[in-house]
Amino acid sequence: MSDPTKLPEAEAGHEDDYALDKEIVSEVLLALDAQNHARLAQIFDPLHPADIADLLEQVPAADRRDLILFAGPLIDGEVLSEIDESIREDVIDFLPDEQLAEAVRELESDDVVDILEDLDEPQQQAILGALDSGDRIAVKQALSYPEFSAGRLMQREVVSVPEHWNVGATIDHLRGETDLPEQFYHIILVDPRHRPVAYVTLGRLMSSARDVALADIVEDSFRLFRVDEDEGDVAYAFNQYHLISAPVVDEDGRLVGAITIDDAMVVLDEEHEEDVFRLAGVGDESLATSTLQIVRRRFPWLGVNLLTSIIASMVIALFEDVLSAVVALAVLMPIVASMGGNAATQSMTVAVRALATRDLTSSNALRVIRRESVAGLMNGAIFAVVMGVVGYVWFGVPMIGVVIAVAMVVNLLVAGLSGVLVPITLDKAGIDPALASGTFVTTVTDVVGFFAFLGLASLVLL
Amino acid sequence: MSDPTKLPEAEAGHEDDYALDKEIVSEVLLALDAQNHARLAQIFDPLHPADIADLLEQVPAADRRDLILFAGPLIDGEVLSEIDESIREDVIDFLPDEQLAEAVRELESDDVVDILEDLDEPQQQAILGALDSGDRIAVKQALSYPEFSAGRLMQREVVSVPEHWNVGATIDHLRGETDLPEQFYHIILVDPRHRPVAYVTLGRLMSSARDVALADIVEDSFRLFRVDEDEGDVAYAFNQYHLISAPVVDEDGRLVGAITIDDAMVVLDEEHEEDVFRLAGVGDESLATSTLQIVRRRFPWLGVNLLTSIIASMVIALFEDVLSAVVALAVLMPIVASMGGNAATQSMTVAVRALATRDLTSSNALRVIRRESVAGLMNGAIFAVVMGVVGYVWFGVPMIGVVIAVAMVVNLLVAGLSGVLVPITLDKAGIDPALASGTFVTTVTDVVGFFAFLGLASLVLL
Repeated sequence: MSDPTKLPEAEAGHEDDYALDKEIVSEVLLALDAQNHARLAQIFDPLHPADIADLLEQVPAADRRDLILFAGPLIDGEVLSEIDESIREDVIDFLPDEQLAEAVRELESDDVVDILEDLDEPQQQAILGALDSGDRIAVKQALSYPEFSAGRLMQREVVSVPEHWNVGATIDHLRGETDLPEQFYHIILVDPRHRPVAYVTLGRLMSSARDVALADIVEDSFRLFRVDEDEGDVAYAFNQYHLISAPVVDEDGRLVGAITIDDAMVVLDEEHEEDVFRLAGVGDESLATSTLQIVRRRFPWLGVNLLTSIIASMVIALFEDVLSAVVALAVLMPIVASMGGNAATQSMTVAVRALATRDLTSSNALRVIRRESVAGLMNGAIFAVVMGVVGYVWFGVPMIGVVIAVAMVVNLLVAGLSGVLVPITLDKAGIDPALASGTFVTTVTDVVGFFAFLGLASLVLL
Repeated sequence: MSDPTKLPEAEAGHEDDYALDKEIVSEVLLALDAQNHARLAQIFDPLHPADIADLLEQVPAADRRDLILFAGPLIDGEVLSEIDESIREDVIDFLPDEQLAEAVRELESDDVVDILEDLDEPQQQAILGALDSGDRIAVKQALSYPEFSAGRLMQREVVSVPEHWNVGATIDHLRGETDLPEQFYHIILVDPRHRPVAYVTLGRLMSSARDVALADIVEDSFRLFRVDEDEGDVAYAFNQYHLISAPVVDEDGRLVGAITIDDAMVVLDEEHEEDVFRLAGVGDESLATSTLQIVRRRFPWLGVNLLTSIIASMVIALFEDVLSAVVALAVLMPIVASMGGNAATQSMTVAVRALATRDLTSSNALRVIRRESVAGLMNGAIFAVVMGVVGYVWFGVPMIGVVIAVAMVVNLLVAGLSGVLVPITLDKAGIDPALASGTFVTTVTDVVGFFAFLGLASLVLL
């Protein structure tokens, strides 16, 4: 993929085009073993910094330190900012001070902030010390905004002109300016108090006559964000309104920076990962997380699950009589729990996603709850018939079929209901529904399912 | 949020800034009831097309038709392209023909394609008929590319110049051009056979002297895609390499269009939703999906789950003797299944995500498998001690504690192992791991868990 005129397809030819292939990793390790610096540089040269970062993540932890020490100058600022947080600290620890300083000096201030915010105090100081004073002030200013805020996400470099200017004046200004940002897509129009009021795309500017007023060619899509706004809300707005860039203002409404869509895309991706992981009871981890750390991070979720499953077991313990009298119940019991858990996960996932995309609101919540209840009842009825027959045929006792059929209806109804009610309630209470819904919902379906199944069995079969 | 100079925060003041509030929906329904067209127009006027689309999704299905008929001209092409697929067909059915024609005529060809590809043949023909012949040919051409390909995603409108041009010639060309695309960020350099070889950002162009050769100010980030490349791969590359736009070429490498990051962001978002839903056993659905449809779409997943849980029950049935002798086993059994299922979901989710982000590859698969096994063993050992004590204290039989402790270690080890092995195997076999992993993994942990727990109990307690 080094030669941009060459099609990626032509080299690899199937769906894994963008995965680093095993060969590259082995070749890097070979070059490291042979202490062949030229070969290593040759392998790294055509790679994008994001791919070099991936490579460092893929190398076994034992070799990573050697590789970093040996590859040193090949690991520049861009690689540092691409690398996964879980190993970034190590990489920074292993990098000699002067190389680290050189690496961060070449970065834009928002990338330095992104690196700094995850580091320990001493590492932060080392990097801040490496910056020139202007950048250091900018980075410290950015770090003063709350974590996960628009202020942390924005770049300070923006292009703004007075709102009354025309196309010709703006083009002359841009062409006279020597210090334009590396990437910019809009010219921001500001009022005399430096508050952004509109923007013009570069493309529109290029294609308009010199005497046209900027005010006449502004874009409808203009939206602005406050420095303290949550980055998740920013990412949502970029996605919802197809923004490319947007100005950021301070408490007084004055222009302090701009956020571009590529940064919003990264946030969107991180928020998704967080949601998927939280739904599954996984904390912040990646493949580079060490074994001990994943044990420690997954432990609390498993602990909570142990507590809730003990609660479910206590419900079962209430019915020891009927269980010892009719052992078929113990055989069928996990089916009730499993079907309830699955149906609940289905409606819960849809609800959690709809809350995240702001599609589930107070205006349609009642309708969604009703829909899930009816759907739960209907699938419950279908599976009641199926399991009723299976239970009867398997154990030859009609009443066992009846009991599991009724339990199935009750359980799938409760699954549908709790799958949507629990996330909505958590969201109203200000708790991330992705984080806690699963535990609550499966506890409810387990308890209700076992109670319905074994309770009814006690009434009918004892 | 109508006045761009007004801060969103100032109006709502908390995290739900971007959710349509209940009041708007009620007011729309009131205006509809009163047949007050002026009021409706007044409510819609400040809204972004994406918000009007959300509003149509939030209105009860019964009112939606009336609203569409009544609001008619307020539903323009942009609203149509923002609206959720699940209700777009209805909206198009309800819209009078001439309004539909007017709505699609104002759209760019890639948005028309996006609307068309989900519609039935007769609806497609109606819309194609409404387009002027140039657009119709463009849309038909786009539809000839495979679904979910770069060709469907791209816009055909691009700005390209010969690679040997300089800044001055390019600026003059742009300023003389009357038909520039609405949004463009790069000037694409093409060779004499119209194959893209590099690009220059508009910002860089603006800030360079007129006699500078374009070839000297091209961007490193240049990457191109083939028309038939999968849109998921395109979205991955945009995210991985921070692309803003990228040219698309045909089989001969000739420039046929460009993809911009906002389209890639939409794809990324859709792929995430698909992964989350597939992991949870939910198909393609949204809040606007009808009750009957969600019953029908969730049914197959529940059916598969029923089959696998019957398999698990058959394992339990092998041990009826010990279950009727020691009823405590029936009480504790669900804890083993639940802990195994949870631990497996954790490692499976991390593995599925890592496969999606191309972080889990053949070069680190073995290490990840080893890590999951060790982590499973370690958490298994911790919970074995906890449950061993709980089992002993609860039932007063030391051997019950020993049995559940051993089962816990075995089950969490198998959970960690299968959680990563199953997705990797499915991925190798070309099956989407998000789609099928859950079923396989929970079947494995249930079967192994019950077998270990009850089998050991038979040996020790009978």
